[in-house]
Amino acid sequence: MAATALDSAIFRDIFTTAAMRQVFSDEARTQAYLDIEAALARVQARLGIIPAEAAKEIERQCRVENIDLDRLKQQTERIGYPVLGVVQQIVALCRDGLGEWCHWGATTQDITDTATVLQIRAALALVEADMAAISAALAQLARRYRDTPMAGRSNLQQAVPITFGFKAASLLAAMQRHRARLAELRPRVLTGEFAGAAGTLASLGADGLKVQAALMAELGLGQPEIAWHTVRDRIAEVGCFLALVTGTLGKLSMDVKLMMQTEVAEVFEPFHEARGSSSTMPQKRNPISCLYIHATAALVRHNAAALLEAAVADHERSTGPWQIEWIALPEIFLLASGCLAQSRDLIAGLEVDTDRMRANLGLTGGLIVTEAVMMGLAPHLGRQRAHDLVYDVARKVAATGLPLVDLLAREPEIACHVTRAELERLTDPAGYLGLAGEMVDRVLAAEDLEHDPEKWVPVFGKDHAPPMS
Amino acid sequence: MAATALDSAIFRDIFTTAAMRQVFSDEARTQAYLDIEAALARVQARLGIIPAEAAKEIERQCRVENIDLDRLKQQTERIGYPVLGVVQQIVALCRDGLGEWCHWGATTQDITDTATVLQIRAALALVEADMAAISAALAQLARRYRDTPMAGRSNLQQAVPITFGFKAASLLAAMQRHRARLAELRPRVLTGEFAGAAGTLASLGADGLKVQAALMAELGLGQPEIAWHTVRDRIAEVGCFLALVTGTLGKLSMDVKLMMQTEVAEVFEPFHEARGSSSTMPQKRNPISCLYIHATAALVRHNAAALLEAAVADHERSTGPWQIEWIALPEIFLLASGCLAQSRDLIAGLEVDTDRMRANLGLTGGLIVTEAVMMGLAPHLGRQRAHDLVYDVARKVAATGLPLVDLLAREPEIACHVTRAELERLTDPAGYLGLAGEMVDRVLAAEDLEHDPEKWVPVFGKDHAPPMS
Amino acid sequence: MAATALDSAIFRDIFTTAAMRQVFSDEARTQAYLDIEAALARVQARLGIIPAEAAKEIERQCRVENIDLDRLKQQTERIGYPVLGVVQQIVALCRDGLGEWCHWGATTQDITDTATVLQIRAALALVEADMAAISAALAQLARRYRDTPMAGRSNLQQAVPITFGFKAASLLAAMQRHRARLAELRPRVLTGEFAGAAGTLASLGADGLKVQAALMAELGLGQPEIAWHTVRDRIAEVGCFLALVTGTLGKLSMDVKLMMQTEVAEVFEPFHEARGSSSTMPQKRNPISCLYIHATAALVRHNAAALLEAAVADHERSTGPWQIEWIALPEIFLLASGCLAQSRDLIAGLEVDTDRMRANLGLTGGLIVTEAVMMGLAPHLGRQRAHDLVYDVARKVAATGLPLVDLLAREPEIACHVTRAELERLTDPAGYLGLAGEMVDRVLAAEDLEHDPEKWVPVFGKDHAPPMS
Amino acid sequence: MAATALDSAIFRDIFTTAAMRQVFSDEARTQAYLDIEAALARVQARLGIIPAEAAKEIERQCRVENIDLDRLKQQTERIGYPVLGVVQQIVALCRDGLGEWCHWGATTQDITDTATVLQIRAALALVEADMAAISAALAQLARRYRDTPMAGRSNLQQAVPITFGFKAASLLAAMQRHRARLAELRPRVLTGEFAGAAGTLASLGADGLKVQAALMAELGLGQPEIAWHTVRDRIAEVGCFLALVTGTLGKLSMDVKLMMQTEVAEVFEPFHEARGSSSTMPQKRNPISCLYIHATAALVRHNAAALLEAAVADHERSTGPWQIEWIALPEIFLLASGCLAQSRDLIAGLEVDTDRMRANLGLTGGLIVTEAVMMGLAPHLGRQRAHDLVYDVARKVAATGLPLVDLLAREPEIACHVTRAELERLTDPAGYLGLAGEMVDRVLAAEDLEHDPEKWVPVFGKDHAPPMS
Repeated sequence: MAATALDSAIFRDIFTTAAMRQVFSDEARTQAYLDIEAALARVQARLGIIPAEAAKEIERQCRVENIDLDRLKQQTERIGYPVLGVVQQIVALCRDGLGEWCHWGATTQDITDTATVLQIRAALALVEADMAAISAALAQLARRYRDTPMAGRSNLQQAVPITFGFKAASLLAAMQRHRARLAELRPRVLTGEFAGAAGTLASLGADGLKVQAALMAELGLGQPEIAWHTVRDRIAEVGCFLALVTGTLGKLSMDVKLMMQTEVAEVFEPFHEARGSSSTMPQKRNPISCLYIHATAALVRHNAAALLEAAVADHERSTGPWQIEWIALPEIFLLASGCLAQSRDLIAGLEVDTDRMRANLGLTGGLIVTEAVMMGLAPHLGRQRAHDLVYDVARKVAATGLPLVDLLAREPEIACHVTRAELERLTDPAGYLGLAGEMVDRVLAAEDLEHDPEKWVPVFGKDHAPPMS
Repeated sequence: MAATALDSAIFRDIFTTAAMRQVFSDEARTQAYLDIEAALARVQARLGIIPAEAAKEIERQCRVENIDLDRLKQQTERIGYPVLGVVQQIVALCRDGLGEWCHWGATTQDITDTATVLQIRAALALVEADMAAISAALAQLARRYRDTPMAGRSNLQQAVPITFGFKAASLLAAMQRHRARLAELRPRVLTGEFAGAAGTLASLGADGLKVQAALMAELGLGQPEIAWHTVRDRIAEVGCFLALVTGTLGKLSMDVKLMMQTEVAEVFEPFHEARGSSSTMPQKRNPISCLYIHATAALVRHNAAALLEAAVADHERSTGPWQIEWIALPEIFLLASGCLAQSRDLIAGLEVDTDRMRANLGLTGGLIVTEAVMMGLAPHLGRQRAHDLVYDVARKVAATGLPLVDLLAREPEIACHVTRAELERLTDPAGYLGLAGEMVDRVLAAEDLEHDPEKWVPVFGKDHAPPMS
Repeated sequence: MAATALDSAIFRDIFTTAAMRQVFSDEARTQAYLDIEAALARVQARLGIIPAEAAKEIERQCRVENIDLDRLKQQTERIGYPVLGVVQQIVALCRDGLGEWCHWGATTQDITDTATVLQIRAALALVEADMAAISAALAQLARRYRDTPMAGRSNLQQAVPITFGFKAASLLAAMQRHRARLAELRPRVLTGEFAGAAGTLASLGADGLKVQAALMAELGLGQPEIAWHTVRDRIAEVGCFLALVTGTLGKLSMDVKLMMQTEVAEVFEPFHEARGSSSTMPQKRNPISCLYIHATAALVRHNAAALLEAAVADHERSTGPWQIEWIALPEIFLLASGCLAQSRDLIAGLEVDTDRMRANLGLTGGLIVTEAVMMGLAPHLGRQRAHDLVYDVARKVAATGLPLVDLLAREPEIACHVTRAELERLTDPAGYLGLAGEMVDRVLAAEDLEHDPEKWVPVFGKDHAPPMS
Repeated sequence: MAATALDSAIFRDIFTTAAMRQVFSDEARTQAYLDIEAALARVQARLGIIPAEAAKEIERQCRVENIDLDRLKQQTERIGYPVLGVVQQIVALCRDGLGEWCHWGATTQDITDTATVLQIRAALALVEADMAAISAALAQLARRYRDTPMAGRSNLQQAVPITFGFKAASLLAAMQRHRARLAELRPRVLTGEFAGAAGTLASLGADGLKVQAALMAELGLGQPEIAWHTVRDRIAEVGCFLALVTGTLGKLSMDVKLMMQTEVAEVFEPFHEARGSSSTMPQKRNPISCLYIHATAALVRHNAAALLEAAVADHERSTGPWQIEWIALPEIFLLASGCLAQSRDLIAGLEVDTDRMRANLGLTGGLIVTEAVMMGLAPHLGRQRAHDLVYDVARKVAATGLPLVDLLAREPEIACHVTRAELERLTDPAGYLGLAGEMVDRVLAAEDLEHDPEKWVPVFGKDHAPPMS
């Protein structure tokens, strides 16, 4: 009987994914403790610090199936932390007192933090896979709709034409930056902890750093330069990263839900029978994924703020701030997993109504290309004069409903410079897409480059740096 | 297999309470939907809107045991909301098509919001009970230690003496304000929702408000003046309230953990065998509840911010912001429940070392009463001169380690005004407690007043208003 | 040369108001210190604690014009707080050493906190005035457009018809709740502080509470039951209140900007020449106030979270958390003032295009009234069957573009129950407004009631409780 | 007359720095607009797009002294953005209508965003300089106090000994990570914007990307791969970075203020006459910088959350979210500048009382080395038995106040394995510092390496990777 929405029997697969829940499950976390204790024993036996027989026995017992979780709950409530309870159970399980060598020289937080880093590693792999799928789907949209005109909107007003591919590519470029961020933070964040009670490794004498290095190698983690029990920028950085990624997805969902409006109707979430239907309004095609993306992205942000707050730790083990992480770190990954999964499905199956996009371009009677007209007239009239004149004509269009091209043609100051045919060309939205296509190509080229460096062909000539330089 | 810390098989009773989890469980939420549907049918039958037979059958089926939660999960994922799935299951369960009358004229959000308000009502009752227990324990501390001197500390420096009862009473006064806030917000927040698809009750014709009034009476909730599907200040207000309450508890835990420091050692969390022990430092008596209080209070704040953000809803049903509430509202109550329970246990069992409090008062060789000395000398020397002179002497005390009283007696400018005996009196911390006791009495009087108005005796004479006026 | 947007020579009147900036100016804050010191001297002279001559001289000097702000800046940087610097300057200004009696028995935080409360009082008066103006403008919209049909939208999809007055009234109801909240919090928050170094009033001996009571009476503030130097729920509560109010305004701006979209075009911000024009898109009528409302409301929320965090104070004067308030409290009021002012102007001058509202109701070829049809058919077919049937027809409307009424009439299962004329009535949006008007009346009645209790006439008959009961 | 604390005539140099205020002043921002307009004209003339004469005249006028800021304020209030007002003023200033060529093909947001990036570049340079100074001061502390024993504290309890240099080095390691983060984000963030109304560069025809590339080269900024008007991860990333950096400083201030406690007294903020003095408690040596660091770091976090929220932008120019940045971005840098400056001064002048550190190590009668004893006994008794036995003895020490070493020596189970002399060695705190010194060396080596790669000598032998690998 779950009480949170994230673990809810009803909502869990809406707001999170099974794979991410697995990473942060009680079982997986406890198994991570055990994996670390086993690795530690192995390494210490290899270095001659504990008996080989003890290591073998400890490793044999370090399976989560051996742990009595009910008892562990009681131990944790009593002690305040689960690690010692796990160790006590292992000690009791090991034959001939060999368990006494378990957890040798370690402190509770060493095991907890390193387990957290192992969870982060697994969780980031899931995040990365979804990011890749989202990037691929965005790349497909960018490619397919590279030249599909639609209204660009600023301040929710139709402004000038863009293409739908351009919209997709601008999000894809953000995903490229997020992948770069992930690559940068990984070695920094995937660093374990093994330092003893106050971080000095005092309990292991001169062997401490050797054990630490070997343990981290065993676990495939970076060795810390110094203990970081209360210097938590690594954890907060992960939170910020997830907030940045889901922020982009929040923007994606914002655009999709706006384009799904009854009055706009340019794109739709993937159709599933009864998906987004209402108990009272049978005609509706509600956005659904967009809602979840919006909400989970918002809560990722708030949990990121909590992780930043947790960085203000005290002395050598923090008194409260660390516990913020215990709650917020699983949540932020769980929420991000839901946000990513909903986004991935949304983009992969997005329905695009290019006819409606084109039709909406015509809604303003040509006003959407006033900039084109202004820029076209500027060489003749000066920019400011062209601006003022077109501004006046545009006001007349809005007032009368007459087509822009007609009212422009009637202005003597314009007619003496530009023919009707030229005005018609100037007022065709599809003729005013600028370099949308070229920008799409730049982003796609960077995408291809990443996936296959040999494919790379400079788009803008040899004497230009690659797009992201 | 839970993934959140709040539902974790290991941590759930640390960060939350069973009672609060019950309120926000899938079962309780679903049963709340069913209670509302049953009440609605009952009321509509009474008003002659649906057949009495249908109401009876609907009510008979509206038990959560009848609901297939796995199927409900699938329905919810498809539709985006659970209510319609519940209704569909009830419809299918009812004999003779009588279920068709279920959910008559309602919209998904009517049921969801009203269920949420029922959950809030139950949850606030739990909060109130814990607040009462905390207040009672604080009152006991305030009463018992009304005159127990300890160091008052500003900027973490010993400043002037206070009493431990004064410290408790200042928190108790905050709990009194919180109880007043709760009383104020309850009628505002415990208001149901029944308004149909866009809030106009259109589906019920002229009977709508009658049904609405009767339904709310049936459920014991206030009738809304107008639909509030997307005007969410009520929900955000609950979040703010919990953040205010837990903010006070955060301050409580801050003081307790500071007083538990090895170097201060004035109070201790209740002792339980092995509680707060460490796997490597057997001597330690760690704060444990303080950690959880600190962390849950912090996360309550962040969830309150999320609920405030959710208030920026769009049109007649919001597209994403509402879903923030689905996640954040259960969490904020769950976190608050843990925060309150840990605080309640902490205060009720707090161990107080009054000897150590007294000993710490002597740590500065009398410097803690320099203000007393300054105020005592001011009538003779002027405040500024007394300040400057005592400041200089205090610097000498800090430099030499000699007792304040000796160095004061050596100053001719002082000695000519004040005798050694007077200086000794001036430098006794227990003689400089000001009106700490009277302030404690004021707060306790307000407490008694609340619990038994007849007990109320004005503390400061008839011509003074009651303390909180 | 200001560096913040709020004090910027360019942006200050966009994001804040001059009146609110005045309340939080260096001069006003410093004058508040001086007012309190003068009141304290007056009161202490009256009680015979300091010489009357001293009080008179102190009061004479306590004018901000007498304060050297450059010197005060240096003093503040040295000492860490401005109050002592102000006192030192007053002491130096007073003739014959009479200034020595200034600040008698007070501590820095007494003066600072009480000054803050005086600022809050002045600031809340400004907030209240803007809230009243916004309420009046919303009431006017609610009254004027009580019966003006427009599309109600859920999940950004046209759902069922509402009226524009209903939309306004639902926000007005929130403003009524906010006014109630303000009335509740005022006596709690407008409570001064005068308690000495650690809150015990030790420096004033037995007279302390008498001085405190008289000082608060002099300043028109409530007397605290006990010192609250580090129990800051009052300050955090003010932040929450402002976040709740501006949250409602955020929702208002959300709806307005959505309705201003090119494709919707139902309302517009007040027209001012060139307002909302673009350097490149002369045709645009951009929302402008909406942007500022959205942004300032968001930042109010984040500052409210900061004030909640500041409540976790330590001991008897907090070491950092208090300073959060120094920055966040002025900001939150400044931001709220901008948010309120922009909202007030927006609502007061809102242009409403009722024709376009009506036209948009027709966009879906009747689909917006499918609920009406479904409810109309339900008595004949059962709710579920009606739902499924209408759902299918609605899908056909969407696919073919044919009018709903025609396709309904073609369904034999429908035709055998309902005539074409009845179907036409069922599919008229203006005929499906439900109780929108009645709900508007309920809210307006509560508004009238507040402004003139004698006007109150029960809208729904004697046997009904007043709307908000 | 400033209203914010950050611009306050009294507080501005406490919470911010003059250099950072200069970067975000109205003048500097406006000059940045002008620099960009001048660079654009220069570049466009070079490419033959506008007349050389126009570029020369535009450049000549593009000085902030020429701008009437009062008029600009009015223009900005009318239009909603300042850029067009600046352009209009320049147009009016240019002779012979040459100003018409100003802002050619640009949109308001191009100029605003690029100016923001120029401000970020200047601001990050200031941040970097302070980070370097802080790192240098931390390195000095780490080196100087490499072997100075003090109590390591976990959960605010004395745990095991550390050295003060170890504490400094753990913060220094975080500063190293922050410097790496800064190096990574710089090329990503320092990317300009020039893309026209909806990002397609439509107004410039085929020349658009050439102009864009040349303009960015001229300004020393990266060229964007595609427009990012509404894809704001770059801006949010800057906020996260500052929150990470100041989070570390928050931890620093937390430790310093805890160590400054009357009862601990191990370090002190730099002494300045009267600094941290109180109006009533002359003996106090209050932390001051710590308060400001704590508060500004907290508010940086909240502003970072606001910037993350601003990333959820709509379409091609966002309607409100962008304005969040206008306010929050200057504030976050201003707050960070204050936080960094206070931290820099604090660390550079920190007074360290090594005698008191040593004395505090003795406070527990030897209990701080129970881990040492436990680890020393474990080879003889087994870890669990050693733990339990030492735990019991430790309880006796706490109860009786007798020295640990004596009570240990009395235990037969211990005495039969370990001599009194060995017990004395085991219970000497300075003998249980573990690898604190080696870890300090690792961090310092990374510091030296960064500043002079040739100096690098592997500390742990050739067969070890460098510390941070």
